Amino acid sequence: MLTDQPVAPHGLRVRRLGIETGGEAIVFMHADCPVARSEGFATRTRVEVHAGGRRALATLFFTTNGLLDPDEVGLPNALWRQLHAGDGDVIEVRHPQPLASMSDVRAKIYGHRLEQDRLARIVADIATGRYSDVELAAFVTAFAGQPLDVRETAALTRAMLEAGDRLDWPDELVLDKHCVGGLPANRTTPLIVAIVTAAGFTMPKTSSRAITSPAGTADAMEVMAPVNLDLAAMRRVVEREGGCVVWGGNVRLSPADDILIGVERALDVDSEVQLVASILSKKLAAGATHVLLDLPVGATAKVRSPAEAARLSAHLVAVAAEFHLSVTPVLTDGTQPVGSGIGPALEAHDVLAVLRRAPDAPADLRERSIDLSGRILDLAGGPPGRGRAQASAILDDGRALDKFMAICEAQGGFSEPSTAPLRYTISAPRSARVAAFDNRTLARVAKLAGAPRSKSAGISLHVKLGATVARGEPIFTVHAESRGELDYALAFAAANPDAIRLASL
Amino acid sequence: MLTDQPVAPHGLRVRRLGIETGGEAIVFMHADCPVARSEGFATRTRVEVHAGGRRALATLFFTTNGLLDPDEVGLPNALWRQLHAGDGDVIEVRHPQPLASMSDVRAKIYGHRLEQDRLARIVADIATGRYSDVELAAFVTAFAGQPLDVRETAALTRAMLEAGDRLDWPDELVLDKHCVGGLPANRTTPLIVAIVTAAGFTMPKTSSRAITSPAGTADAMEVMAPVNLDLAAMRRVVEREGGCVVWGGNVRLSPADDILIGVERALDVDSEVQLVASILSKKLAAGATHVLLDLPVGATAKVRSPAEAARLSAHLVAVAAEFHLSVTPVLTDGTQPVGSGIGPALEAHDVLAVLRRAPDAPADLRERSIDLSGRILDLAGGPPGRGRAQASAILDDGRALDKFMAICEAQGGFSEPSTAPLRYTISAPRSARVAAFDNRTLARVAKLAGAPRSKSAGISLHVKLGATVARGEPIFTVHAESRGELDYALAFAAANPDAIRLASL
Repeated sequence: MLTDQPVAPHGLRVRRLGIETGGEAIVFMHADCPVARSEGFATRTRVEVHAGGRRALATLFFTTNGLLDPDEVGLPNALWRQLHAGDGDVIEVRHPQPLASMSDVRAKIYGHRLEQDRLARIVADIATGRYSDVELAAFVTAFAGQPLDVRETAALTRAMLEAGDRLDWPDELVLDKHCVGGLPANRTTPLIVAIVTAAGFTMPKTSSRAITSPAGTADAMEVMAPVNLDLAAMRRVVEREGGCVVWGGNVRLSPADDILIGVERALDVDSEVQLVASILSKKLAAGATHVLLDLPVGATAKVRSPAEAARLSAHLVAVAAEFHLSVTPVLTDGTQPVGSGIGPALEAHDVLAVLRRAPDAPADLRERSIDLSGRILDLAGGPPGRGRAQASAILDDGRALDKFMAICEAQGGFSEPSTAPLRYTISAPRSARVAAFDNRTLARVAKLAGAPRSKSAGISLHVKLGATVARGEPIFTVHAESRGELDYALAFAAANPDAIRLASL
Repeated sequence: MLTDQPVAPHGLRVRRLGIETGGEAIVFMHADCPVARSEGFATRTRVEVHAGGRRALATLFFTTNGLLDPDEVGLPNALWRQLHAGDGDVIEVRHPQPLASMSDVRAKIYGHRLEQDRLARIVADIATGRYSDVELAAFVTAFAGQPLDVRETAALTRAMLEAGDRLDWPDELVLDKHCVGGLPANRTTPLIVAIVTAAGFTMPKTSSRAITSPAGTADAMEVMAPVNLDLAAMRRVVEREGGCVVWGGNVRLSPADDILIGVERALDVDSEVQLVASILSKKLAAGATHVLLDLPVGATAKVRSPAEAARLSAHLVAVAAEFHLSVTPVLTDGTQPVGSGIGPALEAHDVLAVLRRAPDAPADLRERSIDLSGRILDLAGGPPGRGRAQASAILDDGRALDKFMAICEAQGGFSEPSTAPLRYTISAPRSARVAAFDNRTLARVAKLAGAPRSKSAGISLHVKLGATVARGEPIFTVHAESRGELDYALAFAAANPDAIRLASL
């Protein structure tokens, strides 16, 4: 009785527009496009793009001038690559099937607890790029407002784990560490990986790039060795050297998490549920059995009090137990930056100075790395405290340096970090005592100076908490690669003199 | 001590890109743009655009080919108009000040109740376009998960009211109505406005366009008279004729609400707090003193049970009382569409048939309009029930038709609605009784047929609930303006035969 002829195919010629959308897929069509008119598309309609056997969901924007012909569809760079498109190819744009998992997100928004199957459906859709930014924001926000539930968080962790790739190792013990962050510099990871793997253990470390900070571990490591390894290359490095320090974003160990982090950064909203699922899904995917959790505590660090650290680590330990993963929390000092450099190359200089036992190597970075390495070695068994002595010896006799260089070689080759061409030093306006560091303001100055995009940009600190300085003594130096960035950072520093607060003697 | 020279101005030549973003402001810059490099912008950075004395927040996208020169910034149509830009003008793109009100949104996300001043700050930023879509989604979601609080909802209503324009009238009584919706067709508003104003009362009605439906009242009205009036024009119509039916989106009576609705539609999330604030802020801004609230109740309507209707209307009445606004709820039948047409022109035909007392005028639309008009007239005082007789008389003796035509003339001139060139009638496959209507599926068929964009597209119904039909008797007709849309709607109808469920006799 009804017409059963298939809807006519809606072919459009594809054109590469050379736009970097950096996330959400977008397509462009002319407002007079006959397909758009017959389908009833409007600007911001969600559409499904079909090219060959590939398809993607995207948000449609109309163009109203000569940018596109009416029978063309314009693709940004990421979608162009994803669809393996070529200029002039004919592709189809259709109404998408409704995203069934969004009804689960709505259930979460209205306060329901989600079970494994519904979370798996959501996370699979997120990992394959089917959510718009607005939908991702709703998902992130829905979890942020609700107290952590161990069972639900374990289910989210499992869903994130299953949406990505996973490594496994022949070793009974696979060690890892995670730092909750918020403290500039604090670049202990390359040192710890070098020490622990030099001691003969396996430590396949993936690290993040900066999200809101002047440098992530991956950014600092990258000025010394390639970090954009894929999963197979990472596996080869670990099989050869026992460990690695690679960027987590290229190995797809938790692809949904990589997507969610972008929205969390835009909103500056941290859901404890997602923080726990994010950390644990990545550690489990990397094949870890024992994880040391470093929680720097300080008024301007991410974790602001010991009580907050205790609550967060209790949640992490409880959810990890569901996966038979051992998590050992350790609270560290989060009142001031660790090391003297803030920014990719400046932090790498600190790491190398400690490994090379340079006279001016930052003592606090060295001590903290030995301390945390020792605790990780203790996780492998043996009398408590023996690990620290072992870590210290490995660093002192050069084994850590040799191992680090070997890891860098295995990742693609070591290179010496560069030095910024422009520097400006801020000096003490009067004799004073260094009373407090505002980690967030210091991070902002380093970012305005160009970090992490400009590798050698950032800040180097000349003082530590409690030190006394005479009038005219250097407090910190801003490093930049361009005059504009130097000016911008200095103007902000001048307007925020309490980045490093000086008290009268 | 520090450099105090101002950061050099970062001028870029502006180019109109002819893109309709439909919401969030976007700007485009070349990835090699020197301003982007010196400022450390990345794709999706939020930036502030300055042009003359005007400025706007926008999300930055990089281009990597010849779309833009490195010293150019590309603007989409809306931002181009907003900044009064001209091709080749030099404008500046800078880092924005942090959006202070987002910290209030975060407080809401984490479950805090917001007071008047913080809600006012958020709503003012939303109304002036300073929120990204992701930020709007977080705001909408944060409220959706929490139970309604009368004081907070009143504060949000006041904030929305204060962010827009406001009308006031010399009359002591200013009548209005609002329908919570979810029922296709149900186009009582033009009839009610004609009857109530013909009775000598003031009824300055603003209506919405379709959000997720095949037609809003403004869409149906627009095929008979212009509805895109600005506030001054709306005031003139009401001063002359006592009432109007105009589109609410052009009069800025609650501009923040207009922006939020776009995100609520994308997410398909309805927050009760925002629903109440949305309705009341628009009624208060229009100067209403007494509002009749029509709540159609039915399994596939927006309000699904009398209990849900009671809860929602209790909240509306309580919040309205804070503003000395009288709200009278009335529950109506929401089990099937009202009238026979679904779609702008088809609904307008129904309205005109009732006004013209045509023999085939839908009796249910006529009865419901008389009933609701009567209740509104009763709000003005007098013995209960007198209003209904008065409404019926005004419709029967042609005064309502005359008044409606006068209002159309005042709004810019009446025109007769068109008829679709393509039609296809679905007939009963067997003798049966009409057992149920799925309002949502019917709405979807009408939308696939092209409504509301194609004015004459949609559905006309030939049966009502409980009717018996013989084999081959018409059930409904799909109307379309293009063959593709007709096919699309018919294919969907064939796949969803329970849009109108037939039961065996």
